[in-house]
Amino acid sequence: MTPDAVIATLKTLVDPDKVRVDAESLDNWGKDWTKHFAPAPLAIVFPKTVEQVQAVVRFANEQKLALVPSGGRTGLSAAAVAANGEIVVSFDYMNQIGEFNAYDRTVVCQPGVVTAQLQQFAEEKGLYYPVDFASAGSSQIGGNIGTNAGGIKVIRYGMTRNWVAGLKVVTGTGELLELNRDLIKNATGYDLRQLFIGAEGTLGFVVEATMRLERAPKNLTAMVLGTPDFDSIMPVLHAFQDKLDLTAFEFFSDKAMAKIMGRGDVPAPFETECPFYALLEFEAISEDIANDALATFEHCVEQGWVLDGVMSQSQQQLENLWKLREFISETISHWTPYKNDISVTVGKVPAFLHDIDAIVGEHYPDFEIVWFGHIGDGNLHLNILKPENLSKDEFFAKCATVNKWVFEIVEKYNGSISAEHGVGMTKRDYLTYSRSPAEIAVMKSIKAVFDPNGIMNPGKIFN
Amino acid sequence: MTPDAVIATLKTLVDPDKVRVDAESLDNWGKDWTKHFAPAPLAIVFPKTVEQVQAVVRFANEQKLALVPSGGRTGLSAAAVAANGEIVVSFDYMNQIGEFNAYDRTVVCQPGVVTAQLQQFAEEKGLYYPVDFASAGSSQIGGNIGTNAGGIKVIRYGMTRNWVAGLKVVTGTGELLELNRDLIKNATGYDLRQLFIGAEGTLGFVVEATMRLERAPKNLTAMVLGTPDFDSIMPVLHAFQDKLDLTAFEFFSDKAMAKIMGRGDVPAPFETECPFYALLEFEAISEDIANDALATFEHCVEQGWVLDGVMSQSQQQLENLWKLREFISETISHWTPYKNDISVTVGKVPAFLHDIDAIVGEHYPDFEIVWFGHIGDGNLHLNILKPENLSKDEFFAKCATVNKWVFEIVEKYNGSISAEHGVGMTKRDYLTYSRSPAEIAVMKSIKAVFDPNGIMNPGKIFN
Repeated sequence: MTPDAVIATLKTLVDPDKVRVDAESLDNWGKDWTKHFAPAPLAIVFPKTVEQVQAVVRFANEQKLALVPSGGRTGLSAAAVAANGEIVVSFDYMNQIGEFNAYDRTVVCQPGVVTAQLQQFAEEKGLYYPVDFASAGSSQIGGNIGTNAGGIKVIRYGMTRNWVAGLKVVTGTGELLELNRDLIKNATGYDLRQLFIGAEGTLGFVVEATMRLERAPKNLTAMVLGTPDFDSIMPVLHAFQDKLDLTAFEFFSDKAMAKIMGRGDVPAPFETECPFYALLEFEAISEDIANDALATFEHCVEQGWVLDGVMSQSQQQLENLWKLREFISETISHWTPYKNDISVTVGKVPAFLHDIDAIVGEHYPDFEIVWFGHIGDGNLHLNILKPENLSKDEFFAKCATVNKWVFEIVEKYNGSISAEHGVGMTKRDYLTYSRSPAEIAVMKSIKAVFDPNGIMNPGKIFN
Repeated sequence: MTPDAVIATLKTLVDPDKVRVDAESLDNWGKDWTKHFAPAPLAIVFPKTVEQVQAVVRFANEQKLALVPSGGRTGLSAAAVAANGEIVVSFDYMNQIGEFNAYDRTVVCQPGVVTAQLQQFAEEKGLYYPVDFASAGSSQIGGNIGTNAGGIKVIRYGMTRNWVAGLKVVTGTGELLELNRDLIKNATGYDLRQLFIGAEGTLGFVVEATMRLERAPKNLTAMVLGTPDFDSIMPVLHAFQDKLDLTAFEFFSDKAMAKIMGRGDVPAPFETECPFYALLEFEAISEDIANDALATFEHCVEQGWVLDGVMSQSQQQLENLWKLREFISETISHWTPYKNDISVTVGKVPAFLHDIDAIVGEHYPDFEIVWFGHIGDGNLHLNILKPENLSKDEFFAKCATVNKWVFEIVEKYNGSISAEHGVGMTKRDYLTYSRSPAEIAVMKSIKAVFDPNGIMNPGKIFN
């Protein structure tokens, strides 16, 4: 079938004006936030119904045409990039919030519902959707499920996986599977829903999800603590976790703090300059709990684990403290950072971080490393800033070498080369550092069960 | 290969004294708590190491011999019954608790660790293993994972699935897969760990699990409330859930209460006799919370949803209130109950329960129905007691008819024919009431990926 014939057929499968082939659209919907691959899709289709998605998939399956699912396109692993003449299936027009069930605290979402839209809906119902991260204003629920999105509240609320009560997916044959019926308890064989969460659209496309909501947190209170070294952060985490149900435990380095202070629009938490900082958050639902937090802080100071600290006393102060952490990514983007999103079990974090610091420092002493991340769940974001005297190409070439060392250290510590960004195309060639050949073989066989012709987001996760 | 040759070979694969073929052993390790199928295994093997498990599986795979995994044998779906000359693989000698990680709050368990043993270990570390149910004193972690065990704290802590940080499994080819590396965040492709949870040993056998532990609950406090009808339980649930983080929300009927009172060893919670009772539990970590609970109770009384109630003021009272719920199963066992373990979404529970009551009452007005269950998660246990004038055979024959009606209602309400007991053999022929033909076909294909010769617990879940 010629490309023109394909496009003509697509126009019969979705609304005729919902197929785009203009250069701007191909560029816009053909990529995510990564910039490693030039977008080159054949066409963008915008189905409005499950039936239209099925029709597109059935057609693609017959003709063996590759499909790429597209949500908010905020991904950081090129899982939603169409670089090889694929048909992009955008869920922008399937963005409605459906039935809400107060007893179950569930709400039905089309895949194109934006994360912030769901958060807002929950708030209107006096509830809370707890998966939150920097791109929540653009990312879509379908994409969140595809990558099992995490973010800043995982220590308390877990990943997106925890909040998916039920799923409807269209597999690679165009078949609609309705998975788990939104039940809490359902012991009737394999929980296929779990397979689609984090599968990056390679098994099928999410066409509807029933999401769970949670009680809204009460009187959220943050502390920022400065520590004399990285290792001190660990007993601080332990001491606070012993006393409080933390909703977040983040960290960042002095270099990150310096960049934030350089903006001029975020107040310093305190005067003492420290090599590392921890930001923790909890619900101060009673005075006892606030007192526990203060007592634990004092204990940490006495032990020498903390040099200085501050606790928010108002919503405004809470927000200001969070800016210290949340603005990092955007602020350092000026220095063309080379990013890695890696994880180990929490107890291994200090040794792991030291090993990486040492190897990068040894080979590239002029590279500035900005560390930050979700230490409460073992997830570190390693950001290497481009020195001014290096071209982008030279810098990225050197970083590719660094990558290999970093991943060897990840493997040594039995960690993950992608904690929450996914594999997509950017981590595909490194997958063996985190998954065994036997696991990868099984994954390929499972893909063949759902997608016998390999049309669903091919080339993502593995080849 | 003759049966004798098989047994002789098995003795070379595990310790020679760890193969049993005596009639008592075959009977004991060949069954679970169900009594529908006569145990008839060929032999029982007790491996002591992962390598021994792999050797047994490889041998079985070569010879196409069926294997049945065996844990605490407390299952209620005959998933661990060997009724067809299978080799039972018991994990009784792989029952050690391994490395504990305080920062991650994880502990490595061999599959034969008993649930109560893990609960006890957690307590010694000042932590908590929150999956709890009647058979916790005998059930093993491997079996809990195989059935994704639930129980009485699911409303707060979720199923066993939530507590499995990492898994080692031996698949049907004898291959060892190490899944998820105990990480909280790991976005590197399909989360195969999830497939094995709830797979009833049909994809492979769990040979090690890293389990998460939780902060120990503080000052657990229970309330028992009497309601004028079943429907009133729902707004009560809603009102309390709005104010408190409930750790349990159970219910039982007046008939269940009467049986408990008939024992003579459990104090009545209060004098008022009510058609239904709710038992709820929460952490009274501050006076505010206890006051919120009392205010909500008063609100429920004012609304007419609650006729009477009591709140525990001591550990002893807490335990006594829990006996009202926890002793039901054991107490009614005297009446040879026909049990169903079904679930729907929480909001549908009242209509669902009425429909079932109506159809059983219409056809068998002399059948006494005892309802109890975990209403906070939509899981109802329907128990039909055997009238004295019916023989066991006549009774079970009539119940088989009831079963069909019940499952038709389950299907109508889009529920589950097995909320937490699993499918095994007892629910196998009813699976289509809860899973579509397409889903069942996919499950069979996935089984073929891990177990090409169909030797891993064959005939369980599906044929």
